[in-house]
Amino acid sequence: MCAQYCISFADVEKAHINIRDYIHLTPVLTSSILNQVAGRSLFFKCELFQKTGSFKIRGALNAIRALIPATLEGKPKAVVTHSSGNHGQALTYAAKLEGIPAYIVVPQTAPNCKKLAIQAYGASIIYSEQSDESREKVTKRIMEETEGILVHPNQEPAVIAGQGTIALEVLNQALKPSVKVYAAEPLNADDCYQSKLKGELTPNACPPETVADGVKASIGTNTWPIIRDLVDDVFTVTEDEIKYATQLVWERMKLLIEPTAGVGVAAVLSHNFQTVSPEVKNICIVLSGGNVDLTSLTWVKPAERPGPNQPFFMQ
Amino acid sequence: MCAQYCISFADVEKAHINIRDYIHLTPVLTSSILNQVAGRSLFFKCELFQKTGSFKIRGALNAIRALIPATLEGKPKAVVTHSSGNHGQALTYAAKLEGIPAYIVVPQTAPNCKKLAIQAYGASIIYSEQSDESREKVTKRIMEETEGILVHPNQEPAVIAGQGTIALEVLNQALKPSVKVYAAEPLNADDCYQSKLKGELTPNACPPETVADGVKASIGTNTWPIIRDLVDDVFTVTEDEIKYATQLVWERMKLLIEPTAGVGVAAVLSHNFQTVSPEVKNICIVLSGGNVDLTSLTWVKPAERPGPNQPFFMQ
Repeated sequence: MCAQYCISFADVEKAHINIRDYIHLTPVLTSSILNQVAGRSLFFKCELFQKTGSFKIRGALNAIRALIPATLEGKPKAVVTHSSGNHGQALTYAAKLEGIPAYIVVPQTAPNCKKLAIQAYGASIIYSEQSDESREKVTKRIMEETEGILVHPNQEPAVIAGQGTIALEVLNQALKPSVKVYAAEPLNADDCYQSKLKGELTPNACPPETVADGVKASIGTNTWPIIRDLVDDVFTVTEDEIKYATQLVWERMKLLIEPTAGVGVAAVLSHNFQTVSPEVKNICIVLSGGNVDLTSLTWVKPAERPGPNQPFFMQ
Repeated sequence: MCAQYCISFADVEKAHINIRDYIHLTPVLTSSILNQVAGRSLFFKCELFQKTGSFKIRGALNAIRALIPATLEGKPKAVVTHSSGNHGQALTYAAKLEGIPAYIVVPQTAPNCKKLAIQAYGASIIYSEQSDESREKVTKRIMEETEGILVHPNQEPAVIAGQGTIALEVLNQALKPSVKVYAAEPLNADDCYQSKLKGELTPNACPPETVADGVKASIGTNTWPIIRDLVDDVFTVTEDEIKYATQLVWERMKLLIEPTAGVGVAAVLSHNFQTVSPEVKNICIVLSGGNVDLTSLTWVKPAERPGPNQPFFMQ
C-alpha cells in the first residue's frame, strides 16, 4: 500500500484497535440453500447485527476518536454529516458516547425508519433535496452555523479506515488472505462500474432511482483510487435482482437485511457472475445493514428469480 | 416425572441423542434494546435458524426415528399429518431423509410460503377446511388410502419429546435448571389459558382468528397434563401486542421471525407480565420459527407500542 491512497493498511489496523471494544464481532453465517443457488460456498458477514444496525458505526467511531485529540479544547463543538441514514445513525451514536452534539443532513426521500432512528439517537435532523449538490450546500451552511466539523460519510479517511476493519475480521473468521475483491452496485447507480470502465472518476449523472437507498451517493476522490487499483471487478445488478436477492435472504436465512445489503447477494447470484472462474469457490458477502422501512415494502411479492437464468425452485 | 404424562424426562434425553447430529444447535441471542423494553434480561433461542425454518424438525426427526423399528418391513409405507405448515415441512424433510413419502393435510387458509415450502420439500399436499374436525376427517381418509402412519403435530409422544430438546439446549446455553415455565398464547386462541383456569382440557370453541397461524390448533389430551402440572402460568396477548412484538424483533434484532414466534415476546413485554416477580430477571424466549408469508403482511405499520403502557421511544 503506498502514498497514493488516503489511508494505509496500518490505518485500518489502528482503527481496529481504536474501535474493537465498542463494536460487536458480528457472526459469519452460512446457508446451504444459498450455496445451492449460487453454486459456490457463501459466507455472510452479518453487519445487520452491528451496533446501530449497520457497519457504518465502525467508521463513525474511528472518526470521532481521530477528532478528539485534533482540537485545542479536547473535543469539537459539533459534528455534521450528510447521510442517507446509516452513517447518520452511526455518527450520532458515536458522538453521543463523547458528549458531542450531532447535526445530520438527510434527503427528504430517506426511509422513515432511518430518520426516526437518527432522532431517537439524539441528533438534530436537517433536510436537503436528494441531489449531491443540495446535500453539500446544506451541510456547509450547518457547519458554519454550529462551528461543527464535517465527518464525510465515505470520503473521510478515518471513516474509510474504520469500514476497512470488516475485512480484518473476515480474514480472521472465514477466509485466507489470498482473496479477490469484487464490488457490487445497482445498474441504476453504476458510478463505480462506469469509473472503472473509463479509468476516471465518473459520478452518477443525476440522482439515481434504486431500492438500495444506501448507495445512491457517488464514490469520491478519496475512495476512487482504492477502487481503481484494489477492486478486481464491479458487478451491476438490476432492481429486480436486488429485490429477489433481498427477499431470498429474508425468506431463507431469516435475516432482515435492508435492500442495499442485498446488492452484493444479487451480484453473486447474477448471470454475469457466472463468468468468474469456478476456482473462486468461497465468497464472503458483507450484509451491510438491516435498517429497512417495512412500511415501504410495496414491492414484496412471491419470490421469482429474475433475469436470464432458468426458473428456480428452492429445496 | 411420573407415569401420568405421555413422556418422561428420559424420553427427551433420548430424543436429543436421536436427533442432535441432524439439527442445528441454534444460537441464543441477546439485545440490549429488548432488555430495556422488557426491564429484564432476555435470551432469544433462535429456532427460526433451525433446519426447515422452525423447531418442528426436532419432533419430526424423533418421530421418524421412532417409527422405523416399529414396522415389520423396516419402514412405514407413508407418513401423514395435518399441520398449519411448520410441522408439515419438518415431517416431509425428516421422512425424505429415510425415503418415506409424506402426505400433508393443510388448511386452505395457511400462509402460501408454507404450502410452497411443503411442496418444495417433496410432499403431497391435501387441503382441508380450517376446523379441527375437517382436518382430522381428511387426515383419516388419507391414512386409509395410503396405508400411512399418522405423526400428529403435537399429541404424538415422540414429537413432544423431540420438541422438549429445546429446553435441554437452553439449560446448557443460558440458564440454570431452577427455572419457571411460562406459556404464551393469543387472546383469540386461549384454549391453554381457559384449560388452566377451569382445571380441565377446554379446546377453542371455534376456529380462532389470529395472526399467529401456528397456534390456531387446540392443545390435546397428551399435552394437557404436562401443561396443567408443569407450566407455572399462561399469558394471553392481543393481536396488536403480537404484531408490535413481532415488528420490534424485526426492526431491532433484524431477525425475521413469524408472528407465532412473536407471541412469547409479546407476553414478556405485556402489562400482565409486570405481575411476575422482579426476581425473575433472566428470561429465555423461544423464537419458534421464521416461515413468514411476506406478501400477507398488510398489517405492517410504523411501530407503536400497544396497550396500557406509557408511550415508548426506542433508543
